Amino acid sequence: MKSDTDSLPKGTRGRRAPATRRPRPESKKREREILDAAAEIFHRQGYADTSVQDVADAVGILKGSLYYYIDSKEDLLFRVLVEVHEDARGIVDEVSLLDSPPVEKLYEYIRRHIDYNARNLAKIAVYYHDSQLLTSDRRHVIVQQRAIYEEFVIGLIRGGQQRGEIDKSVDPTLAANAVFGAVNWIYTWYRPGGRVKPEYLGQLYAELIVNGLTGARMPSLPPRRRRRRSTTSS
Amino acid sequence: MKSDTDSLPKGTRGRRAPATRRPRPESKKREREILDAAAEIFHRQGYADTSVQDVADAVGILKGSLYYYIDSKEDLLFRVLVEVHEDARGIVDEVSLLDSPPVEKLYEYIRRHIDYNARNLAKIAVYYHDSQLLTSDRRHVIVQQRAIYEEFVIGLIRGGQQRGEIDKSVDPTLAANAVFGAVNWIYTWYRPGGRVKPEYLGQLYAELIVNGLTGARMPSLPPRRRRRRSTTSS
Repeated sequence: MKSDTDSLPKGTRGRRAPATRRPRPESKKREREILDAAAEIFHRQGYADTSVQDVADAVGILKGSLYYYIDSKEDLLFRVLVEVHEDARGIVDEVSLLDSPPVEKLYEYIRRHIDYNARNLAKIAVYYHDSQLLTSDRRHVIVQQRAIYEEFVIGLIRGGQQRGEIDKSVDPTLAANAVFGAVNWIYTWYRPGGRVKPEYLGQLYAELIVNGLTGARMPSLPPRRRRRRSTTSS
Repeated sequence: MKSDTDSLPKGTRGRRAPATRRPRPESKKREREILDAAAEIFHRQGYADTSVQDVADAVGILKGSLYYYIDSKEDLLFRVLVEVHEDARGIVDEVSLLDSPPVEKLYEYIRRHIDYNARNLAKIAVYYHDSQLLTSDRRHVIVQQRAIYEEFVIGLIRGGQQRGEIDKSVDPTLAANAVFGAVNWIYTWYRPGGRVKPEYLGQLYAELIVNGLTGARMPSLPPRRRRRRSTTSS
C-alpha cells in the first residue's frame, strides 16, 4: 500500500502550487507529461488504486518534484479534467470562427471532437468515468464547464432549424445528447492503431449524425413545465 | 417500482446465465426487489462504498436473509449485470421475431432499448460503470454477453445494406457503436419524471439514428488486416 504523503522533502508543503497557478513556460511541457501519465495510469489501474508515487515513477521524477505541480492526487485528477475541458473548449472556439452555416459547423465540430477523443482515449475515459470522484466544489466546476459545449451544439441545431435544414419538431437538447452519446462513447470501444484512423471515424460519425438530424421528423413534445429544467419527481 | 418483466416475452426469464443460482418461484419477486435496490444503491453511493447491510436495510430484510439469494457483494453486482443482459436479450428476441425488413427492425430495436434504458437508469449506469469491478472470470462473461446485441445490430445494418437501404460504404461495426453510444449514454443525462417520456425518447432516437444510417455515404475503409497490428501506418 502506497501512501501519497510520506517522504515529502522538508519545506515542500509550504511551496506547493495552488490549483490555479500557471507554471513557468519551461515547465509546461513537463506539466503536460505529468497529466498525460496521470490520465493513462488512472485509466489503466483506476484512480483509487493509483498513488502519486506511481505517477512520479511513470514520468521519471521524484515524488517531491511532482508536488511542485500539484497539491494532491485529487489535484492531479482535477487538472486532467480541466485540460480535457480546455482542449474541448478550443475545438468549440475554432469551429465558432468558421465562415459556414450552422449545420456545416456541426459537421465540423463532430468531426474534430471525435478526432480529439480518439487520440486522447485515456483522458476522455477519466473525464467521464472519474469526475464524480472529485470533491463537491470541483465536481461542480467540471459539470458547469460541460454546459459550454452542450450549449454550443444546441445552438447549432437551433441555427439549422432557423434555416430550415433541421426540422423544428426535433428537440435540440435531446438531439444534442444523442450527439454527445455517439461522440463520447468511443472511449469504451475504440482501439488506436488499427485500420480505422481517428480522421475517418470523425468523418463517419459527422456524416451519420448530421444526416440523422437533417432527415428526422417528430411529433411535438408537450410544452416545458418550467424554464430550462424539468422536475425530477413525478 | 414497476416490474420490467411484464413486458418481456414468455420464457425470457427462464434463460438465465449458468453462473447464477436459480431461486424458487415464490422468491423471484423478492429477488428482483433486492437487485433493484442494489442497483439503486451502487449507482447512488458507489459500489465500493456500499455494504451488503445497506442493501438489506433498503429492502427491509435481515442481512442473513439476503445471503439466501447471494453469496457476496460481488455476487450482487454480477446478478444485477446478468439481469440487465437478460432484459436486453429479451428485446433482441422480441425484435428478431417481427415480420419487418432489417431497417424497420433496427428502428424498433432502438426504440425499445431506449425505452428500457430510460426506465432502468440505475441498472444501466451500474452495467456500464461498474462491470470492470468484477473479478476477471465474471467480467469476461459480461463482456461476452454484450457481443450478442452488438452482432444483432451489425446484422440489421448489413441486412439494410443488402436491400440497398443503407449504403455499403458505411462500416456496420463502427455504425453499430454510434448506435450504442447514443442509446447507452442516456444514463448520464436523462432524468425520469419530466416532460420527456421514455417512449418519446425512444422514438426520437430511433428516428435520428435510422435517418442517419439510411442517408450516410462514406469513402471506403482500407481492407481489414489479417494481423491486429502493423508496424507502418498506411
